[in-house]
Amino acid sequence: MKDHNQNHAAPQSPAFARLQSHLEQAMAYQTALILLEWDNETLAPREAGPYTARVQGTLSGAYQSIMTGDEIRRLLDACQGEELPESARAILREAREELERLECIPPEEYRAYQELVSESTRIWAKAREDNDFEAFAPTLEKIIAYQKKFAAYRAKDGQKLYDVMLDSYEKGFNMEKLDRFFGKLKEELVPFLHRIMESGVEIRDDFLVGDYPEEKQRELAHFLAEYVGFDFDKGVLAVSAHPFTTNLHNHDVRITTHYSDHVDSSLFSVIHESGHGIYELGVDDSLTQTLIGQGASMGMHESQSRFMENIIGRNEAFWVPIYKRLQELFPSQLGEVSRQQFVAAVNKVQPGLIRTEADELCYSLHVLVRYELEKKLVEEDLDVRKLPGLWADYYEQYLGIRPGKDSEGVLQDIHWSQGSLGYFPSYALGSAFAAQMYAWMKKQMDVEACLRSGDIGAIVRVLREHIHRYGKMRESRRLLKDMTGEDFNPDYYIRYLKEKYGALYGVE
Amino acid sequence: MKDHNQNHAAPQSPAFARLQSHLEQAMAYQTALILLEWDNETLAPREAGPYTARVQGTLSGAYQSIMTGDEIRRLLDACQGEELPESARAILREAREELERLECIPPEEYRAYQELVSESTRIWAKAREDNDFEAFAPTLEKIIAYQKKFAAYRAKDGQKLYDVMLDSYEKGFNMEKLDRFFGKLKEELVPFLHRIMESGVEIRDDFLVGDYPEEKQRELAHFLAEYVGFDFDKGVLAVSAHPFTTNLHNHDVRITTHYSDHVDSSLFSVIHESGHGIYELGVDDSLTQTLIGQGASMGMHESQSRFMENIIGRNEAFWVPIYKRLQELFPSQLGEVSRQQFVAAVNKVQPGLIRTEADELCYSLHVLVRYELEKKLVEEDLDVRKLPGLWADYYEQYLGIRPGKDSEGVLQDIHWSQGSLGYFPSYALGSAFAAQMYAWMKKQMDVEACLRSGDIGAIVRVLREHIHRYGKMRESRRLLKDMTGEDFNPDYYIRYLKEKYGALYGVE
Repeated sequence: MKDHNQNHAAPQSPAFARLQSHLEQAMAYQTALILLEWDNETLAPREAGPYTARVQGTLSGAYQSIMTGDEIRRLLDACQGEELPESARAILREAREELERLECIPPEEYRAYQELVSESTRIWAKAREDNDFEAFAPTLEKIIAYQKKFAAYRAKDGQKLYDVMLDSYEKGFNMEKLDRFFGKLKEELVPFLHRIMESGVEIRDDFLVGDYPEEKQRELAHFLAEYVGFDFDKGVLAVSAHPFTTNLHNHDVRITTHYSDHVDSSLFSVIHESGHGIYELGVDDSLTQTLIGQGASMGMHESQSRFMENIIGRNEAFWVPIYKRLQELFPSQLGEVSRQQFVAAVNKVQPGLIRTEADELCYSLHVLVRYELEKKLVEEDLDVRKLPGLWADYYEQYLGIRPGKDSEGVLQDIHWSQGSLGYFPSYALGSAFAAQMYAWMKKQMDVEACLRSGDIGAIVRVLREHIHRYGKMRESRRLLKDMTGEDFNPDYYIRYLKEKYGALYGVE
Repeated sequence: MKDHNQNHAAPQSPAFARLQSHLEQAMAYQTALILLEWDNETLAPREAGPYTARVQGTLSGAYQSIMTGDEIRRLLDACQGEELPESARAILREAREELERLECIPPEEYRAYQELVSESTRIWAKAREDNDFEAFAPTLEKIIAYQKKFAAYRAKDGQKLYDVMLDSYEKGFNMEKLDRFFGKLKEELVPFLHRIMESGVEIRDDFLVGDYPEEKQRELAHFLAEYVGFDFDKGVLAVSAHPFTTNLHNHDVRITTHYSDHVDSSLFSVIHESGHGIYELGVDDSLTQTLIGQGASMGMHESQSRFMENIIGRNEAFWVPIYKRLQELFPSQLGEVSRQQFVAAVNKVQPGLIRTEADELCYSLHVLVRYELEKKLVEEDLDVRKLPGLWADYYEQYLGIRPGKDSEGVLQDIHWSQGSLGYFPSYALGSAFAAQMYAWMKKQMDVEACLRSGDIGAIVRVLREHIHRYGKMRESRRLLKDMTGEDFNPDYYIRYLKEKYGALYGVE
């Protein structure tokens, strides 16, 4: 095995070398924290929670005390002005940003906020269960107030608060850019969806639900993860309530799925999470356990998972070499279903109320609703009590359906209860990044031919070459531009969707 | 849920309260370390190893730096002479011992030793695979030299080195005591085993091996763990190469098993590990995540696992309410096998070469071999190259069989390669503690009636009352004496074995 201490990010500078050894310690605490969280989501017994929280508190404290310690400050200053390679400069940039992030909030305020948030997901979950938005509203109000306060601490040069929030998930994508992006989506996709719904085309998908044995689904999940390039020597597949990916470092990346009677649910969640996982596994070994040893941004991460799930996984060519295997695993459910029927079914457009269950076309419209509401909450001081009504109105306007209850509406997502404002847009950006990469890639190589011959590796290699290996060394916009030769351009996304779904439904 | 901060071990003393808060931090690092180790044994991908080791290094360092810090020293001194409750005094005792343990060895020596040990298990594993003791001998020699040096650092008042080692696993059981204990075992059990082997009684056990479906074995494992009292709200059952128990704290206790074509192997390993687990789960909540929040000693732990596995689990009465269930799970293997046949089979005496596969009667003779050899290695400077020969001689003498190769002989156990000298005796002590408890318990209650009626809880409650709840507050000898009214007395163990196996084989 390649020596993991050999690190091209460790240049000749003695100050930087000393800084790296402090940062390595900090990363060790982070790795332990990630493992605790993973364990909590996948395995830990019910009663462990409060004790685990104490352990997490201690480790977070140790992390913060290194990252904001005098030694780090001194070393950061000492490195200033030194001639350093790009990776070292990126590490310095991240360390400085992390230091600023950790120290800009007064500790008492941060502690009070942490206490609020540790309660708030529980309050949200209960409110959702009881379909009672009023029970969550006061908590949400407090969270938004804290988030605005914290954003104000971080804001630079009259930056708007929602821009500060957006920036922490996707650098360089502020409201100005996102208004244009979402504006286009609204203008093009809402009427397009309308035409699809009125096309009269009926796609059969009843066979996707049924008595799919879990053992067989597990076998399929492992097969698919490996098939698309997830490396089980450096990775783990487990089960959790909601699928997710986590990475201790690029030699230990973990994905989860869940199994239900909807076979496509676990199947595509595994391909999706494998996309996240392959990204992390593809980070260059010289960056392992450094501050830049992980994916570039939320949006870039979603681009990789959605590329794999939608562009690759829901492509008919993908199933050419392996659909037979699916039929063999589930002969009584899929034995009589043709590959074409199966692929049409997993691409069926069906506007629904729940974001996480949305099809590829409707997905970004769910995000659009959230973007517009977050903007109002942060920039226009929208009264949270108006959220349920506005939510329903927007859904009706964009997707043509109206939630009957808040648990299927404004209460469906955990994000706001965790204080994540500004996060949602990265889901839609990811899809758009992916479409732009795909358009470029098709000019370089015959992607569908790779899929038909089962050579997913050829596609992954291109993604690794242009995106994965850089980790967090470069920003997502730069990576996208370096790869495709063009700045972010949402037209590719709209064109991709219109071509794909136009063909499926015979509309334009 | 009971507030886990409410801690009767935190008395009025402000110095002690401050000490506790430092110790809590140290325990948090320990908990994270335990989780990393658990994860490593049960789940982590192959390539994670070296990175995990770095994280472990950082966390160990943080733990050591708290436990040997000036603040702890100052607070330990400040608590000296204060009026404190028993649990607080026990915590002080443990903290002081830990401090002495951590600082008695010069750091450079300890680091060199750690490097040796991190290599040595790999060297041992390879030597075992290649059946090549010579390849391991130089490493073993070094390990023993270090262990003797370290024991010399810890030795008090002319204490013998092997006594120091024994003391770290089982306080108060030195060579003088163990010579008497093992002497009796040798004197009584060796000829008894001989009589059994010559009794001509043949017990059929072929049906224990076969095509036992893993799914059904998993179902059985979960059922049995729960049946004997393992609480899945506070515990986890997973799979690992070798079964073990670990506890993050008494609200998160984890056991493992492995599944093979020997149904009794996973079945009794689950009951055994459940015994360990129930012990940890039974520690009083006031001791959670303190230095005394775990089992009293290695031997006491083995007493609880062996009580559950052998005295309870291999008891015919235990199977009265549940044997039918076993037959239902495995109709083609056990449908025609009576409960009596099954119980006889799982108690069959069969001297073998491998300790971990030994039956209840032969087990302590395997330990006897190791005790005598360790004594010679430490106290008589036995040349390690003489080990294989002596090992074979002792096996022939005590068990009547001779290993044909070292992988089935002196190379079979991992312990010495990890530097664990003095550990083995606690396995045999545990069995003897258990038998003494059983003899006493039978005077208090009708144990077999509880088993026949499926009320294992009644038995666990007695163990919890007298042993579990105290955690590490009191030493094992004291616990045993307080429970049974008598100091450790190996006669109970010998009597128990002779009665049980005498009846099964019709010998005396």
